[in-house]
This record gives sequence, C-alpha cells and structure tokens, in this order.
Amino acid sequence: MYELHFGVPMSGAILCTLNTRHDSAMVALLLKHSEAKLLFVDYQFLDIAKGALEIMGESTTKLPILVLILESGQASPETANISPPPGTLIYEDLIAKGSLEFKVRRPKDECDPISLNYTSGTTSSPKGVIYSHRGAYLNSLATVLLNEMGSIPVYLWCVPMFHCNGWCLPWGIAAQGGTNVCLRNVTAEGIFDSIFRYKVTHTGGAPTVLNMIINSPIEVRRPLPRKVSVMTGAAPPPPDVLFRMEELGFVVTHSYGLTETYGPGTICSWKPEWDSLPRDKQAKLKARQGVHHLGMEEVDIKDPVTMKSVPADGKTMGEAMFRGNTVMNGYLKNLKATQDAFEGGWLRTGDLGVKHPDGYIELKDRSKDIIISGGENISTIELEGVIYGHPAVLEAAVVARPDDYWGETPCAFVKLKEGQSATEEDIIQFCRNRLPHYMAPRTVVFSELPKTSTGKTQKYILREKAKAMGSLSKSKNKISRL
Amino acid sequence: MYELHFGVPMSGAILCTLNTRHDSAMVALLLKHSEAKLLFVDYQFLDIAKGALEIMGESTTKLPILVLILESGQASPETANISPPPGTLIYEDLIAKGSLEFKVRRPKDECDPISLNYTSGTTSSPKGVIYSHRGAYLNSLATVLLNEMGSIPVYLWCVPMFHCNGWCLPWGIAAQGGTNVCLRNVTAEGIFDSIFRYKVTHTGGAPTVLNMIINSPIEVRRPLPRKVSVMTGAAPPPPDVLFRMEELGFVVTHSYGLTETYGPGTICSWKPEWDSLPRDKQAKLKARQGVHHLGMEEVDIKDPVTMKSVPADGKTMGEAMFRGNTVMNGYLKNLKATQDAFEGGWLRTGDLGVKHPDGYIELKDRSKDIIISGGENISTIELEGVIYGHPAVLEAAVVARPDDYWGETPCAFVKLKEGQSATEEDIIQFCRNRLPHYMAPRTVVFSELPKTSTGKTQKYILREKAKAMGSLSKSKNKISRL
Repeated sequence: MYELHFGVPMSGAILCTLNTRHDSAMVALLLKHSEAKLLFVDYQFLDIAKGALEIMGESTTKLPILVLILESGQASPETANISPPPGTLIYEDLIAKGSLEFKVRRPKDECDPISLNYTSGTTSSPKGVIYSHRGAYLNSLATVLLNEMGSIPVYLWCVPMFHCNGWCLPWGIAAQGGTNVCLRNVTAEGIFDSIFRYKVTHTGGAPTVLNMIINSPIEVRRPLPRKVSVMTGAAPPPPDVLFRMEELGFVVTHSYGLTETYGPGTICSWKPEWDSLPRDKQAKLKARQGVHHLGMEEVDIKDPVTMKSVPADGKTMGEAMFRGNTVMNGYLKNLKATQDAFEGGWLRTGDLGVKHPDGYIELKDRSKDIIISGGENISTIELEGVIYGHPAVLEAAVVARPDDYWGETPCAFVKLKEGQSATEEDIIQFCRNRLPHYMAPRTVVFSELPKTSTGKTQKYILREKAKAMGSLSKSKNKISRL
Repeated sequence: MYELHFGVPMSGAILCTLNTRHDSAMVALLLKHSEAKLLFVDYQFLDIAKGALEIMGESTTKLPILVLILESGQASPETANISPPPGTLIYEDLIAKGSLEFKVRRPKDECDPISLNYTSGTTSSPKGVIYSHRGAYLNSLATVLLNEMGSIPVYLWCVPMFHCNGWCLPWGIAAQGGTNVCLRNVTAEGIFDSIFRYKVTHTGGAPTVLNMIINSPIEVRRPLPRKVSVMTGAAPPPPDVLFRMEELGFVVTHSYGLTETYGPGTICSWKPEWDSLPRDKQAKLKARQGVHHLGMEEVDIKDPVTMKSVPADGKTMGEAMFRGNTVMNGYLKNLKATQDAFEGGWLRTGDLGVKHPDGYIELKDRSKDIIISGGENISTIELEGVIYGHPAVLEAAVVARPDDYWGETPCAFVKLKEGQSATEEDIIQFCRNRLPHYMAPRTVVFSELPKTSTGKTQKYILREKAKAMGSLSKSKNKISRL
C-alpha cells in the first residue's frame, strides 16, 4: 500500500484504498461505486476480494483486474498454497516488467484527484471523499510540520494507511527521507518491539492504541531508546491516558480532523509556558483541538445558521468549520451530500465546540452526541474524560438515554480493566465528586464498546441500546439534580 | 522591517525592501523604478532617504510619503535630535491609528505579487525580482523544513532581511511561533552574546559571517547553550571553515539559490551514513549544492543549448536550472531580461556544475568565473576552497588573469588573518601540493576583497584588476605546467 501511494498517482491513476475490515459485500459496493479498474490485494485478503468479484459478477462483466501481493518469502501462489482466480496478476511480476525510464504522468490540473477515501461510516453509509494533488501535497508538508518531524524520521504505523491516506504521512515521510515500520497486527508487544528495534521517532493512533500501550502487561514493555512522539486524534486523550503515556516516555500531541480534511486539520500546539502548570491543567489544555495547521486556511467555530463566528470566550457553542486547500474537493457522485457539507462556503463538521480567548478551539461534542438533560447541555466528551480518570476504567463512551422527565439523561458504557471491578454507584459517585451533579451519568452499563476499523467507538450502536432501555424516570425515582 | 513583512501584504500592498548600503542615488533610482508610494525608513538611514527624495524631486512631484521609524527609546524626532522633512509620518503613530478590526486584503489571485526584491548586482545593474503570494507561502514552509526548524525556534538574523525577504524566514519563523533576534550591526561579539542570552537555535549567513565567527578573538566567545544550526549560501563553505565552525558547536548546512529563487532553492541534505567518513571527504560532500527543497519542483544541470539533462556522472558540466513554484514571476518592467532568464522554460542561473550519481548537484563556477588555462577548465570555487585551507588565509577569491600564452591563468586575491603572514610563493606551493599543478594560482595579490552588501565578493572588480595587470607570460618566464 505504501508503494501504491506513489506508483498509482505517478501513472496518472487515482488511488482508492479500502478498509481491511470490510466484508466482500462492502468491497463489491465500493469497487462498483469507485469504478476501480485494478484491485491490488494482499494475500491475506484474497478470499474477501474473490467474494467481492463474485458478487459484482452477478450484475456486470466489467470486473477490475486482480493483482495479488504476496509476502516477500512467497515465491508463487502455488508454493504459498493460494489459489487466485484465473487472470490474476502477481504484483512483483508486474513491477518487474516496468521500465526505469518511465515518464511520470502529471495531472492536467493540480486540483485533479489523487485519491478517493471512503469515510469509515461512524455516522452514515460510506461516502467517497476526493483528495486533490494540490491538497495532498500541501497536507504532506503540513503533516511533517505538525508532527515536528525533522529529516529522516522513523515512523511506526498504528494508524491504518487506508484511513485518509494515512493522514498524508506516506508522502510526508518520503519527503523527509524517513523509514516506515509497518505491523501486520497492531499489538502492544509489536509496538514496543518495533520502537526498540528500529529506534522509532514518531507514531500515531486513536486513543484505543494509547490504551493498548498503557495497559500492556509489564513483560512486553521495552525501554524507549528516546522520546517517541505520538499524534492522537478521533477523540481527545483522557487526562489519565496522557499521564501514563508520558510516564512511559511518549510525548502525546492531540490533533483533530475528518476524512474530509485529509486527516488532522488542527493541532493542539503546545506552548512552553504551559510546562509549569499543574498536570490536570496541562491535560485540560491538551484535550483542546487547537489551531489549524499550516496547510489549512482556517478553522472556526461558527453559528451554523448565521455563519457568524462565535465570540472567543470559551463558552459560546457553535459548529466547527474548515476552509482551505486541505479540504476535500467533494464526495464522488454525491452532489447533494457535497452541497450540504459546504453549505455557507465552509466545510461543516457537525462537531460542536467553543473558541477560547487564545484562539484554540475545543470540541464539546458532535451535534448528535450532545445530551440535553433538563435543558442543560451535557458534553459527552467532557463526561467521558472524567470517567476515564477512574482507576478501574479501561474505556468509556457516553450517550443520551431518552427520559420522560429530563428529556435525556447521560448513559455511560464502560469497559473495565482486566481484573478490576467497580459498581454503577462507584462510577456515578466518582463523577458527582468531580462535576456538576446534573452531568453525572444516571446509568452505567459495563460492556465491550463497539468500534469502527479505525478504532472509533460506534456511538450509534450504543445510542440504540440506550434507547431500547426506555425512560429512566419511569423505572427509578427522581434524583435531585443538585 | 519584520512587521512590514506582514502589515504591507495584509493591506494589499507590495513590499519592496531596499539594501541598507545603497546611497541616495541608488535609492532614488529604485524608488522611481518600483513606483513606491510609501517609504518606511529607520532613523539611521534618514539622511540617505532625504537625499533620495531630493534627487527624485528634481524630475517629479510624485514622491513617496516618508514614514520614520524611531528607536523604542525615542519619544519623538525632536527629542532624538532628528529632523525629518515636512509631511513625514511617524511609524508608531501610524500604527496606533490602526484598528484591531482590520480586514485583510487578500490578493485577487494567489500568483499576484507579494514583494519586489532588487538583485544585489554581483553581475549587472539591479533587476526587480517579483515574488508571488503562492511562491512566498510555499517557500516559507520549505525554508522551515530545510532549516530543520521545529516549533518555537529562536532565529538570529545575520542574513539581511532585505535580501530575498530574508529567504522567506520572516514568514516561516512566524509560522513556527519563533522568536527573531536582530542585530543593528553583525559582529562576532553580538553573535556570541545573542546566542548565549536568547538561546538561539538557528542562524544563517554568507561565508563572511562564518569567517567572522571562527576568527573572532577568544575574549568575545561564549559557550553555546546548545548546537546552533547555521544555514550558509552564496558560496560553498571551505573545508577549514566548516571544521572550525563545528569545533565551536555549530552545525553548518549548505544551501544554494538566487534572488530569483526566493533565496535557497537547493539544500545539501546530510545523510547519516556520511557521519563515519573522514573529515575531508565530509567537507567535500558538504560543499555540494545538493537537491531541490520541498517547495521547488526541480533543479537540474542541463546543456544550455540543447536543454538536455547532463548525465549524472559527476563530470559532465552543464548549467544549473530551476523550475517550480518558488521561482520568481519575472523582472519588473524588464521583459527582455525575463525572457532571457526563462529561455527554454527553465530559470537559467548562469552557474555551471555537474550532477553526481546520487542526484546531488555541485557547482563548479559561474559561467563567467570559470578559468580556461591552456585548454583546461579551472574551477575557481575549487581553488578557493584549497587556498582557504592555508592557516594564514582569512579570505580568498580567484579570477582569471589574461595570458598571451595560456589564454588565462588563475590569479588569487587573498586577505590574511590579522598578525599572520604568508608570501606569494607560500600560497602557490600550498596549492601545488594539493591540486594538479595547472590549477595552482600563478599570481597572488594580498589585499582587502570588495564585497556586496550581502557579503558576496564582487568578482567583477577583481577581474578588472587582474586584467589591468596584463599577461603573465610576457612578464615572467614560462613555468612548467606539470
């Protein structure tokens, strides 16, 4: 996939990477929607690909050509006991036929597409986000800068490369003459091993990856040869996760973005004067989404109706919006969704937040994640941050539970650490001690959290579960709010 | 001048910085050519500015408005004993009248000019090089990357900010949240003091500045609080200069460019595998001009007639040429010069060099600086590098001296270090011991070297001096070449 990030655009084609967790039906759907002509597939996913082509074959004869990628030790499909369908090309054979005298086919216009990225579907069915050569170039430079990457970095891939073209890091790392360390499976052992063996300088991942690191058994840990920079996104790192990562020698930076913004569009740039603040204050500052990076023109918090910027008071809520070169061209074959996304001339994120007096933005929630309880807005992000601080909690996600009296009440889904225990009352009391009482969860459910392939919690599943529970005010007595 | 790099473009105007060494006649010429409407002038240069306006006043009534910049301690021109002409505005008063609610006036097109930079005139009369917003933005990002600047750098200005907009560093440093340390006069004492006091991380300068540092008296030196990165250009750093800079704790990087390329267009990117090479081999590698930076599309060595790339063999000579976003729009009001510069679709530099098998370019000379002696090409850059290695030599410049027998012979102008001595024979023998004998200078003149305001040696003056000496073969007996 790393090589294809270069070879495909240089041949004048458009790269569309697919999520390795998709099943054959989804792959068939996306192959058809994208009108893919070639399908490069790692041998581990050959069965998924074959299934997808079979499904497609039922309605069309225009199938993409399959190109099979073998492991370096595998001489041929036969010796590796793999049976590709007839007509399949072998990747290394194809490459070997190439000429060193090739001519790069440049795009006619710098805004022509370089890649197509299907959204991971936290909120709806996948949409095909179009990136341009211009945007990808600028985001590659920006991502090098926001990762504080000097020349010759060593990058460990924990973020999947199929996700937003790996935040444009495949190109950025090449530009800096760096080394890429890839793992077939992301495990704490693999992470520590790679850092130790390859002297990794940078990595990145959703909070799930950070969780995996800090909760790893002591026997898989290895000392870090130097400070390792970790870029995290998808959700703000909870204070406790931050502290424990830092104790292990990682430097965590918080960024925020969408598939529509080529990955991170903002960065919580750290100021040296914050170094002397108390740790919990530092964690609070680091949980902010920050400022736009150098490739992005602007991020703002705006009133979604009037399109006016909210005052930078840290209180007035609005919608986070982006504009600039590192915002997508649009959604493939979906004019309606594109128009909706750009209504008012800015990319609307659907994320709600505030702008602080120093210009840093802080998200409070996705518009659909905000809980309105008795007329009070409750930020599920803020509440989750507090629950994460409980020593027995591994993961937490909060959604609204419908309520006949309050309208909604916060319902927390919690996964405990192995061998740890806590009761519903423990968690609720922990939150009441740290927050205004109305913000504390009224319900705590102990369970696994459903995740997307990129490690984001699928809140819509939890929301359905909470809905199915029915109103709390009917089943329990009213609890005093203050 | 730093503030004007932001205020002028943001107001929709074009910034034209003038060399502080110009006299009134030259300033008048450039003000007229550029059609400047406002002239911001530091109080130290008020007399030059007044003189320029007087000269202009002889032929026009359309004079630029003078804006006088006082030192922060100076309350008014009167208290500072300065007498500006009637109608002069005071910079701080003008700024105080501004509104915080100002609206940035964006350019209509991203290729519209942001600044005008007059070339320093090493080769001919000044030409007005036009930079665009697009190019300046990209070069700002590139310059941060090629300087290996993380966030919050501390930059010490030894390169004049009026030169190529300080290689776009005013914008790049702002982008990284950095601190600028400026010196009214660049002295070794000022440099060491500033590094010590402000914990400088980066600086830059022509080899003259490096010379000033390594030849500074021991009593002005201060220990460096950390490694200080130094970007040098204009001429390759001689090996001896490099070694002594490194002993003092500086990390010298070599870059190459022209006013026409927004300052550095290439960088001699250092590879870790070179760290274990012998020092003289390292110095040789570092003297190469390297590869284009991330904002430039391409640098190449081409046959100036056929426009074909020379083979990457480290031997075949051609002309260095650039193309990309960080190449100027053209010369103001000079279509002929613009067409000549871009003949064949690339920016022609007039610099001659080779391309090495690893893709790094190495300049051998400017086309007019190459010495052809008895049919052999002699690189004055290479010869100067050797002469710099002589322990008594502070500065050296080699030009051609006409010769009735050889055509040309190398003539070295040398400035010795204070308190050091060396004879013509010493220098010649030193070179003959280290180079093919035909490359050694036949003449050595001990004198000051004439310099441009940016520290480049004005070789055309030396060339005239050498020409005035007449042929060597008439005045001395023929010397065996080998």
